[in-house]
Amino acid sequence: MPAALFGRLVAAAGPTWHSYTRHEFVLRLARGDLPEAAFRRYLVQDYLFLLHFARAWGLAVYKSDTLAEMRRAQAIVAATLDVEIGLHVEYCRGWGLTEAQMAAEPEAMETVAYTRFVLDRGLAGDRLDLEIALAPCIVGYAEIARERMADPDTKRDGNPYREWLDMYAGDEYQSLARDAAMALDEQFARRGGEGRVPALAALFKTASRLEADFWQMGLNANRN
Amino acid sequence: MPAALFGRLVAAAGPTWHSYTRHEFVLRLARGDLPEAAFRRYLVQDYLFLLHFARAWGLAVYKSDTLAEMRRAQAIVAATLDVEIGLHVEYCRGWGLTEAQMAAEPEAMETVAYTRFVLDRGLAGDRLDLEIALAPCIVGYAEIARERMADPDTKRDGNPYREWLDMYAGDEYQSLARDAAMALDEQFARRGGEGRVPALAALFKTASRLEADFWQMGLNANRN
Amino acid sequence: MPAALFGRLVAAAGPTWHSYTRHEFVLRLARGDLPEAAFRRYLVQDYLFLLHFARAWGLAVYKSDTLAEMRRAQAIVAATLDVEIGLHVEYCRGWGLTEAQMAAEPEAMETVAYTRFVLDRGLAGDRLDLEIALAPCIVGYAEIARERMADPDTKRDGNPYREWLDMYAGDEYQSLARDAAMALDEQFARRGGEGRVPALAALFKTASRLEADFWQMGLNANRN
Amino acid sequence: MPAALFGRLVAAAGPTWHSYTRHEFVLRLARGDLPEAAFRRYLVQDYLFLLHFARAWGLAVYKSDTLAEMRRAQAIVAATLDVEIGLHVEYCRGWGLTEAQMAAEPEAMETVAYTRFVLDRGLAGDRLDLEIALAPCIVGYAEIARERMADPDTKRDGNPYREWLDMYAGDEYQSLARDAAMALDEQFARRGGEGRVPALAALFKTASRLEADFWQMGLNANRN
Repeated sequence: MPAALFGRLVAAAGPTWHSYTRHEFVLRLARGDLPEAAFRRYLVQDYLFLLHFARAWGLAVYKSDTLAEMRRAQAIVAATLDVEIGLHVEYCRGWGLTEAQMAAEPEAMETVAYTRFVLDRGLAGDRLDLEIALAPCIVGYAEIARERMADPDTKRDGNPYREWLDMYAGDEYQSLARDAAMALDEQFARRGGEGRVPALAALFKTASRLEADFWQMGLNANRN
Repeated sequence: MPAALFGRLVAAAGPTWHSYTRHEFVLRLARGDLPEAAFRRYLVQDYLFLLHFARAWGLAVYKSDTLAEMRRAQAIVAATLDVEIGLHVEYCRGWGLTEAQMAAEPEAMETVAYTRFVLDRGLAGDRLDLEIALAPCIVGYAEIARERMADPDTKRDGNPYREWLDMYAGDEYQSLARDAAMALDEQFARRGGEGRVPALAALFKTASRLEADFWQMGLNANRN
Repeated sequence: MPAALFGRLVAAAGPTWHSYTRHEFVLRLARGDLPEAAFRRYLVQDYLFLLHFARAWGLAVYKSDTLAEMRRAQAIVAATLDVEIGLHVEYCRGWGLTEAQMAAEPEAMETVAYTRFVLDRGLAGDRLDLEIALAPCIVGYAEIARERMADPDTKRDGNPYREWLDMYAGDEYQSLARDAAMALDEQFARRGGEGRVPALAALFKTASRLEADFWQMGLNANRN
Repeated sequence: MPAALFGRLVAAAGPTWHSYTRHEFVLRLARGDLPEAAFRRYLVQDYLFLLHFARAWGLAVYKSDTLAEMRRAQAIVAATLDVEIGLHVEYCRGWGLTEAQMAAEPEAMETVAYTRFVLDRGLAGDRLDLEIALAPCIVGYAEIARERMADPDTKRDGNPYREWLDMYAGDEYQSLARDAAMALDEQFARRGGEGRVPALAALFKTASRLEADFWQMGLNANRN
């Protein structure tokens, strides 16, 4: 069974969804002609993003109603702090970026906007609001990588960004994203109802728009 | 039209609801034979309670989705800080209690338990959770006063607590409580759904139980 | 006595402070040659900003330690919801903008970034953090208007933005801003210490940068 | 070097500190004559307490300023959810209590009061406030077990509660508690100052009082 709520949110977001998942940044990354400056800008800001992503899942631990919910949120905090940030730092080292450099970089306005929007929704709303604000990121990345790997225009050999695509198209990440989408249904059953759909759809759409702005911030690096 | 959600929550709370609204403290207050020490203990702790009640509605301003929601919450903060606390202080002066005395009194465990439970629910959940945690207080006091004023056992003349009953049985408070109950329906339509009812009912029941404990704390003063 | 902490924060912000208070948007507004499209863009986003500004002060009510602190925060919530938003709506009507239009406009990324940054700092930190994140706005606007009214290059007659300058240079707003700056010292005495200064200075600087981005967002309207 | 701030807080708490760390519940547990009903009541409520303890450290992840702070909080969430709750459940099984039984038990008012007080302080204040509200629990348990194991009146052989004392007097827990006390100094250097000491001392004292009430709740089980 596909994740029902996630599908409805994507449908309700209309063209905003593809403006994010098929953003020029992504298409050029897949074709291998994304300017290196754009990718490096993205990598640095994504490091700063991950710190707030971990904070958001820490908040989800606080906002849990059940031990199972707490454990799911805690697993994501642990994966982010103990694994992902480490992998990201190692990957960035291959691009000549040290962790100290990235930590010293000011946050781009686009990074501030998306991360703090998520945290505010998470605090003002309940855990369902929080998870829906995070869904364009978690579930969206899986769709982005899957679509691009299925696209004949994607450059497989000699693409400097191939490792990035492989990571998010890989089984491990795809399965994590599927679980995150399914969890929305579980929460919607327990905390939702049709009355919430319009507000949740608006939230999902804004978060998707802010994610598209995040790609654009990467692209803009090339113009400076 | 009666407030639909509030009625369901009361029904779901079972005997817990009357253990609060028909608590011995309330019945004796109405009959006029509540020990003065019990009432004074209640008055002091109710002063401390009001400070956190104002904080809770400040939180509701933060948790608002619309300007109308913000204004409703702000009106309650204003009424509490600018009017109610003043009236309470004045009323307590009649019982020989100064504001400085009350502010210096340590919070009873019962006061801590109910106020912080409300605030935590309000922060971990959404505004509907917050308002439901507050409903036993706001709407319950109106029901308590109305029931007692309709009870032939209530002592009308020479009851030292008559003014208290009159205040909560009065049109102004009854109307405020009715609005609060109606607001739950409006929020439930926008943020609710049947799936949320069991959790909301459990929340309402716990809050009612903590309110019953608050009365008991008053009564216990007499035993010390 | 000048507000001591505020002065230190401004000094520590270095050129970032004037990049905000003497932003091209402000200088052109004072000279009267700011493009109308830029000012209208600003007015609409400032309306959306005010909603979150009210939420931030609602949060400050929740975060208060004393009745006096609560009352100060509540007065600002009340002024914002009952007076300022009304004045803003009326003022915008003069520029041909209805409240419904403004409420329907999507938030600019710059609006999201500054408002949610403030709210997140306010929630993750304490009330001193919250007030310092808000200080560039509240106290900064007073300095901006005062400086511009003292500048011989400012166009006094026939400047379409004169009313805006008069409002923020006026006694009422200047006094409100002075109180806000003084309140930082009171809070710093009670909740601060030298150890906090570097983090508070970094917070103030980021908030000032996001305010500069807000002016830039107005200017950019003209380029589209 | 001993933990400086913790020592000051204990000194400022006066007799309240020992009313908690040398509560009759603890002394009788050490002598082995604590009624079994009291201990069982404590075990069940301590299970419910641990759920909110994990939530509090999830909140600390959200409230972190640095990656190191996040990792320390995350390690405690992980230890609580992945290890401690499991050990507690296993230990309780030895006393004939299943996890399902404990999860179904209503929270005692004392449990609500202490846990929600901590969470509210953590949300209204900053991370230093949060950690100080938790310190009587984390650091206090280490002091309690150490003192009792050094007390000649403590029954070592045939004491049904010996395992409990050993766990908290053991190197692993003692070291965890020492780290928690040291962390207060690190945070105080970065977020504190003398001005905060009176409020932090009041917070610590209230938390200690609520911990004493928690022991009393255990003892009271025997009276029912």
